[in-house]
Amino acid sequence: MTYAPSSPAQTSYTLPVEIKEALKPNSDGLIPAIAQQHDTGELLMMAWMTAESLAETLHTQQVCYWSRSRNKFWRKGESSGQTQKLIDFRLDCDGDTILLLVDQKGPACHTGRRNCFYRSWQEGTFKILMDPLIEPETLYGSQKS
Amino acid sequence: MTYAPSSPAQTSYTLPVEIKEALKPNSDGLIPAIAQQHDTGELLMMAWMTAESLAETLHTQQVCYWSRSRNKFWRKGESSGQTQKLIDFRLDCDGDTILLLVDQKGPACHTGRRNCFYRSWQEGTFKILMDPLIEPETLYGSQKS
Repeated sequence: MTYAPSSPAQTSYTLPVEIKEALKPNSDGLIPAIAQQHDTGELLMMAWMTAESLAETLHTQQVCYWSRSRNKFWRKGESSGQTQKLIDFRLDCDGDTILLLVDQKGPACHTGRRNCFYRSWQEGTFKILMDPLIEPETLYGSQKS
Repeated sequence: MTYAPSSPAQTSYTLPVEIKEALKPNSDGLIPAIAQQHDTGELLMMAWMTAESLAETLHTQQVCYWSRSRNKFWRKGESSGQTQKLIDFRLDCDGDTILLLVDQKGPACHTGRRNCFYRSWQEGTFKILMDPLIEPETLYGSQKS
């Protein structure tokens, strides 16, 4: 899939009524979304979605978050090429957290590591569990995604 | 471990400086914490922590969240008995999301299911992936945890 160079904040897709009624975004219209590699169970990252970015994700089957810092759609991989293909969309009991089972291409983390949770607290200090697969300078121009 | 019947909002434990400096709570002092079963990779739930509840968790090795609705410590399992023993504490690249690898006793979800992410979007509707292990009425008195 080829992304446009910029991410519009709007989508032409809408959520099915059943999802819209079940989703409970916070007061900013945001909902935390956890990405897990579908076949290994590896926890990759946590980011935020809006109802609109979820609609975009379900329609395109490519994960699209909401960037709180850039205040617009964040189509995962649009600048790095490290996309997340949606395999399964799950919603929790309260409707306020999303689980995305995905097929992650390469590193999910902006540091170039496979996942973002590489700091483990062991014997009184953080141990770094993994090295970057790709150096961040190779992944990005000026913006992370 | 036996919990006191109520959860004080204070702890006598403090965070190590390295963690305190790495943690980036939101403007309300909260940080999302994802609980994953350590040996199977099953994603159990997502809840919120404060620096104080994390200090309590690291000291006791029993997961203690922050209840936003009750505005106090939420020692997981204090009313249901379904505790989470901490196996590994991990922090993400930005310091704004926690991953807890845990050993979950029984169901993690207040519905009595093993995990909270039991609704899967399939062919235009939510499919319920699992039944409760224990009926909620059996798990709780008047309050969920």
